[in-house]
Amino acid sequence: MPHIALPESQPGIRGAMAFRPETARPLNDLVEVLLRAPNSLSPGERELIATYISYLNDCHYCQSIHGAIAAAHLDGDEELVRRVKADFRYADISEKLKALLVIASKVQRDGKLVTADDVKLARSQGATDVEIHDTVQYASAFCMYNRYVDGLGTIQPRDEAMYRERGKMVARDGYVSVSKTYLPTEPAAR
Amino acid sequence: MPHIALPESQPGIRGAMAFRPETARPLNDLVEVLLRAPNSLSPGERELIATYISYLNDCHYCQSIHGAIAAAHLDGDEELVRRVKADFRYADISEKLKALLVIASKVQRDGKLVTADDVKLARSQGATDVEIHDTVQYASAFCMYNRYVDGLGTIQPRDEAMYRERGKMVARDGYVSVSKTYLPTEPAAR
Repeated sequence: MPHIALPESQPGIRGAMAFRPETARPLNDLVEVLLRAPNSLSPGERELIATYISYLNDCHYCQSIHGAIAAAHLDGDEELVRRVKADFRYADISEKLKALLVIASKVQRDGKLVTADDVKLARSQGATDVEIHDTVQYASAFCMYNRYVDGLGTIQPRDEAMYRERGKMVARDGYVSVSKTYLPTEPAAR
Repeated sequence: MPHIALPESQPGIRGAMAFRPETARPLNDLVEVLLRAPNSLSPGERELIATYISYLNDCHYCQSIHGAIAAAHLDGDEELVRRVKADFRYADISEKLKALLVIASKVQRDGKLVTADDVKLARSQGATDVEIHDTVQYASAFCMYNRYVDGLGTIQPRDEAMYRERGKMVARDGYVSVSKTYLPTEPAAR
């Protein structure tokens, strides 16, 4: 049950964003540039990091939708998404992505836990400064999105098919574009 | 020592934003609408929540700068900022703000910890649905900003006078306006 009067037809962050379109806009702009803008990390890799952080924060809606978007970017490989969540060290992903996931998982707990050795390992696997920066930012941002979705008590369906369909749509069209299906054209006056 | 090559002249989030102006823009837009846009919670009250979350996350830069901005909005009352951090239950703030700080502090740990009773108490002290929503969002957003600042190992000066001066400037001019002093006009090509 949502803690406040969110629109019942919109689950997860969509309900929160429809309730408060003024802040939805920068939230959508941020996730679009983080996960979709041109980057040396692929959209699938970035969505795997977002999924993993959402899993660590135990946010059902976020780990489900970002897991579905990741799979959509990765030729439908849902098993890979499951393996990254279960233990990314043994998943079929690059050593660079594994080193970035170590950094991300530390940021999820506390940014101060990241060590020079973590960064050195990522660099030795080919990570650039921009990729290391962005990894810290993905993890930080999903610590926000996850708390926002959970803290409002948003509706978080258990219907995997819903996430799968929605994941394909977001992977194809992007966050800002899909947000037009649930955000009002103009913010309501308060 | 920053983990990556951040501009040395810019401490805290400013260094991170100057390094990556593409994401700095939505981050500044978000904090501007959260903490500065017209709202039934005053800028000083909102900055107190931001300061308290940054204190709980032990982010020196964020708690110092937002504490200074809060004080600037509150007639320079730095003692009130200290009391909110030490134990907001005994600080000279409204019962509504105390109830909102309880919700915020739960979101800082995990959004799922917020209970119907927490929300009921806030409502009984006059909090609206928008204020409850926004409180969840302030706490969530600062869990991002704090991790971003700490996770990159940004420079976090111990010079209180620097924060005091900068705090006055941000309280007067706002985040987006002040960001023009350290962000490049156009994002660099990557």
